[in-house]
Amino acid sequence: MDADDPRAVRSRERIVSAARELLRGEGPAAVTFAAVAQRAGVGRATVYRHWATVDALRDEIMDEFTLPFFERPGRPLPQWLHGQLRRLADELTTPAAARMTTSLIQRDAADDGALNSRRDRLFGVLEERLAAVLHQAGSTTTRPAEEVAASLIGPLLYLCLARGRRASDDFIRTLIAEHLPG
Amino acid sequence: MDADDPRAVRSRERIVSAARELLRGEGPAAVTFAAVAQRAGVGRATVYRHWATVDALRDEIMDEFTLPFFERPGRPLPQWLHGQLRRLADELTTPAAARMTTSLIQRDAADDGALNSRRDRLFGVLEERLAAVLHQAGSTTTRPAEEVAASLIGPLLYLCLARGRRASDDFIRTLIAEHLPG
Repeated sequence: MDADDPRAVRSRERIVSAARELLRGEGPAAVTFAAVAQRAGVGRATVYRHWATVDALRDEIMDEFTLPFFERPGRPLPQWLHGQLRRLADELTTPAAARMTTSLIQRDAADDGALNSRRDRLFGVLEERLAAVLHQAGSTTTRPAEEVAASLIGPLLYLCLARGRRASDDFIRTLIAEHLPG
Repeated sequence: MDADDPRAVRSRERIVSAARELLRGEGPAAVTFAAVAQRAGVGRATVYRHWATVDALRDEIMDEFTLPFFERPGRPLPQWLHGQLRRLADELTTPAAARMTTSLIQRDAADDGALNSRRDRLFGVLEERLAAVLHQAGSTTTRPAEEVAASLIGPLLYLCLARGRRASDDFIRTLIAEHLPG
């Protein structure tokens, strides 16, 4: 296939964007050739022509994907952080985000190196962003970035993901208060 | 089948105990008629004679199962609590406990009432035990039991389950210090 053929470029874009929507809406397991082809409005053969296996397609979209939290800090930082944790908490109670998170966390019987390094990358990015924000906000913590993320995000994993409960604004404020000076 | 037949009683016990071992070791999905029959050393037909479906067998063993944490408080309470969280943290990094926890947390596309109420019961029991322990230790918190559990257990879900990292004793001490007076 000629990668410069405009039709091929267009169908590739349509397929990638359909795969991204499935990934965000229903989690990695929903990204199948059949579902992607249907959503993109192309034949399955067209998907095959671009990616030999569904894993190659999944890898491509997962490798560019980052969890959409703690990006581009706004001010004042405490309120912005509250808004970010509020949105994270609310998303974790939705079936789509819950499925995506559990499939990220999931451990296979066989050690899956690709899944492990993807999980490390996705959570690692969140941790770097959080550490940068807390540093900007004047935090002088010497705790490792993953422990800070654990104390801010972990309680929401329990309350919203595992228990399906809404996190109150008071609860989120308590989490933040333990990490921001003043 | 005569429920009083000593051979039937014995085979039932062997099957239940094999199913419990599979549940604890590999999670609910590992409890299949074939695996249970093999581990119990009986034929599959024998398993069928006791339970019409594998779901009935799973339900029976899950309904008696509670998560083995925060039972029978020891003294001094802070050290005992540290030991409990230490063990929880370490187990969450093992593949078997990780699989069991994610399959508990997992949300199906279809709302699964039985799974939801089982999850509520299992986590609810943990929360009641934790609340009782903190009360005994002199905590006067007015926060709901699920929020207290979220702040103690949640960070370990993130660090040990999602990230596969070991929780340091210092990290566990910090978690406890936020909840115990003195």
